Amino acid sequence: MSEKRFEMVKEHHKNTFEKAKKDGKMDKEFISLCNFLTKSKNYFSASSCAGRITLVGLDMNESKKESAFHRKWHRKVKFGEVREGIEAYDGEVLWFKQEPIIFHLGTNNLVNSKPILVACEKAGVKRSGIKVAKEGKFIIEIVGTHQINLPVRENGETKIDNTYLKYLVTKANQKFVKNQKSLKKLEKEMKKLLK
Amino acid sequence: MSEKRFEMVKEHHKNTFEKAKKDGKMDKEFISLCNFLTKSKNYFSASSCAGRITLVGLDMNESKKESAFHRKWHRKVKFGEVREGIEAYDGEVLWFKQEPIIFHLGTNNLVNSKPILVACEKAGVKRSGIKVAKEGKFIIEIVGTHQINLPVRENGETKIDNTYLKYLVTKANQKFVKNQKSLKKLEKEMKKLLK
Repeated sequence: MSEKRFEMVKEHHKNTFEKAKKDGKMDKEFISLCNFLTKSKNYFSASSCAGRITLVGLDMNESKKESAFHRKWHRKVKFGEVREGIEAYDGEVLWFKQEPIIFHLGTNNLVNSKPILVACEKAGVKRSGIKVAKEGKFIIEIVGTHQINLPVRENGETKIDNTYLKYLVTKANQKFVKNQKSLKKLEKEMKKLLK
Repeated sequence: MSEKRFEMVKEHHKNTFEKAKKDGKMDKEFISLCNFLTKSKNYFSASSCAGRITLVGLDMNESKKESAFHRKWHRKVKFGEVREGIEAYDGEVLWFKQEPIIFHLGTNNLVNSKPILVACEKAGVKRSGIKVAKEGKFIIEIVGTHQINLPVRENGETKIDNTYLKYLVTKANQKFVKNQKSLKKLEKEMKKLLK
C-alpha cells in the first residue's frame, strides 16, 4: 500500500517536473539535481526555487495574497527596474525581498529521509526538516538562510532613498549568487550520499 | 533502548529548562508552553526564543561568529538605542534583524511528531519540520515567518537615514508583537492536540 502510494506520487512529480522543464518554467540551477533525483529509485523533487528577488505588496495585516507579487525576478536585478517597481506601487505596504532557495524533496520513508537531512547539514543549508510523514510519502522542506526583507514603501510614500536602494541592490545580487553556490554544494552532498 | 534514550534526553532538557527559568534566562512568553510540554509524557522543549531584534556584525563573507551579536533585545526597541548601536559599530557589515520565533521541541518517535506538525500548520507557523530522527530522539524545529533583515552599515558608513530608521523600528516592533501572537496561537493548538 505504501509502496503503491510512493510509485504514484513519484510518477506524478516526474511528469510535473518534465513538463516544467519543457515549458522553460524550471530554475535552470535546479535542473541537474532534479534530474538526478527523478532518475533515482527512492526520491523525487516536488517543487523548487533557486532564490529570487521580489517586491511583495501586503496589507497592514501582512496577509499575502498570490496577487501580491508586484515584481518577481529569478535573476540578479538592476537599480532602475527595482526603482520603477517601487514607484509604481499604490497598495498599502510594499516589501523588498531577496528570498532564499526553497526546495521540497520527496521520498518513501523515514530511513531514506535521513541522508537528505545529513546532506543539508553538510552543505550548510540549515533550515531543513521532514514536513510530511505519511506511509509512502515523506516530504522534506529545505530553505536557505541567505535573505533580505524590508519594507520600502507605504501608502504611496517611498521610504528609502536612491543611495540606499543602489546599495541594497548590490547586496541582494551578492546574496542571490550565494544562494546558487549553496545549491551547488547541496547537489554535491546529495550526489555523494545517495549514490 | 530507544525508551531509555528518550527518558535520559527528556530529563536532561527538563533540568536545563528549570535552571533557565530560575535564572531568568527564559523568554517569558514561552514559559507556559514549555511547562506544559515538560509535564507531558512524550514531549520536551529543547530550546526556545520568542523572537528578538538584533544588530549582527558579519564579515564580507557573511560568516557569523557567536561574538557577532553587536546588540540583542528580547523586547520592543527604541529608535535612540538602535541608532546608538549602529553608530558604535566599527566592523565590516552590520545587519539589522527582527528575528522570528525559533523553537526546538523533542519527542520519542515519528507517531508523536505528527500532531506537532499539524499544530504548526493550524497556527500558521509555516517553517516547521523534523530535523533529527533517531530512535528515542526526534527533534522538531519550528521557525516563524515574520522577519526583517537588512544591511545598515558598512566599513564605518551608515547606509540608512534617521527617517527610515524610525520607520523601521516601528515595523520591527509591530512584527515582534505579531511573533508573540503566533506563539500564543501555537500554544493553543498544541494544548488542544496533545491533551
